Amino acid sequence: MRWNKLEEEACSVARTVSVIGDRWTLLILRDCFLRVRRFEEFQARLGITRPLLASRLRKLVKDFVLAKVPYQQRPLRYEYRLTEKGLDLYPIVMSIVHWGDVHMAGKKGRPLLHQHANCGQTFDPVMTCSACGEPVNPRQVHVHRGPGAADPRHLPSPATAAAARRRPSRPSRIRHRKSRAHT
Amino acid sequence: MRWNKLEEEACSVARTVSVIGDRWTLLILRDCFLRVRRFEEFQARLGITRPLLASRLRKLVKDFVLAKVPYQQRPLRYEYRLTEKGLDLYPIVMSIVHWGDVHMAGKKGRPLLHQHANCGQTFDPVMTCSACGEPVNPRQVHVHRGPGAADPRHLPSPATAAAARRRPSRPSRIRHRKSRAHT
Repeated sequence: MRWNKLEEEACSVARTVSVIGDRWTLLILRDCFLRVRRFEEFQARLGITRPLLASRLRKLVKDFVLAKVPYQQRPLRYEYRLTEKGLDLYPIVMSIVHWGDVHMAGKKGRPLLHQHANCGQTFDPVMTCSACGEPVNPRQVHVHRGPGAADPRHLPSPATAAAARRRPSRPSRIRHRKSRAHT
Repeated sequence: MRWNKLEEEACSVARTVSVIGDRWTLLILRDCFLRVRRFEEFQARLGITRPLLASRLRKLVKDFVLAKVPYQQRPLRYEYRLTEKGLDLYPIVMSIVHWGDVHMAGKKGRPLLHQHANCGQTFDPVMTCSACGEPVNPRQVHVHRGPGAADPRHLPSPATAAAARRRPSRPSRIRHRKSRAHT
């Protein structure tokens, strides 16, 4: 798999990663959802170099994730706004935030709280099933070939599929442990 | 912000990105959730070089996302399994898959279908609110300082917060459009 061919891979992860799979890009998107829109503000918040920021923003505009729209005519100035396609990235950004809150927060706790305007409560995101509405965990999910399946590499391999049948639908539960020094 | 200091940033996105914010790492994790566990199989599926794969797996073990456990004694052989912390990455991987299915799938449609064992249906992930159970969209979320807030850069800036008050809780809806050539 070559990175410049990622968009052509018949894998939805690989294709998404070709758009957002860059560390700066994810932080830019986080800021977009905090309603940051202007070049100077992205730059001040992220401490990123101007050429790097310009290239990341240019790619997000090219991929239709951000739109570059004028906010002032004289002199002409632009800002960057999330498109519909960009707004759809919200579950990715929120699940990244949530994992960080749970597993990487410091002693003082999470840096930001999210309040759901509809119910007024502080909330965490919960991934649920579009069919039954129940929370989903990886042990309860089976994967099948879809209509766009092209490359057998993206399915569970025969070996792992057989192993999965022996231990149906149950990735092993392992507590955190230190790695061994030897291989 | 420097990349080697990312883990120290008081931002849950930055901290998570310090663990998974690498394109190979995201594809390795996708394969982990397809129950791939062995070095040779990761390598065959991803077409990644051995040193690069070894370094990514080593980092995931160091970060307690994967555990390296023996599956054979003579000769001693190891496989890589998701820990609890690793299994918690599932909503991130699934929301990446879903965005790719919606916005990046080719004409033939999505490459994989996900079936929820509990209800038997093919499903998409839906992000819901832990408090009220309703789906969440970014227009309905307010962000506040949490106990671990340290760096004002991670909050909406005064300028954007003021703009958000003028247009409360409503990032603009913009259809995909081509970028302009001029700046």
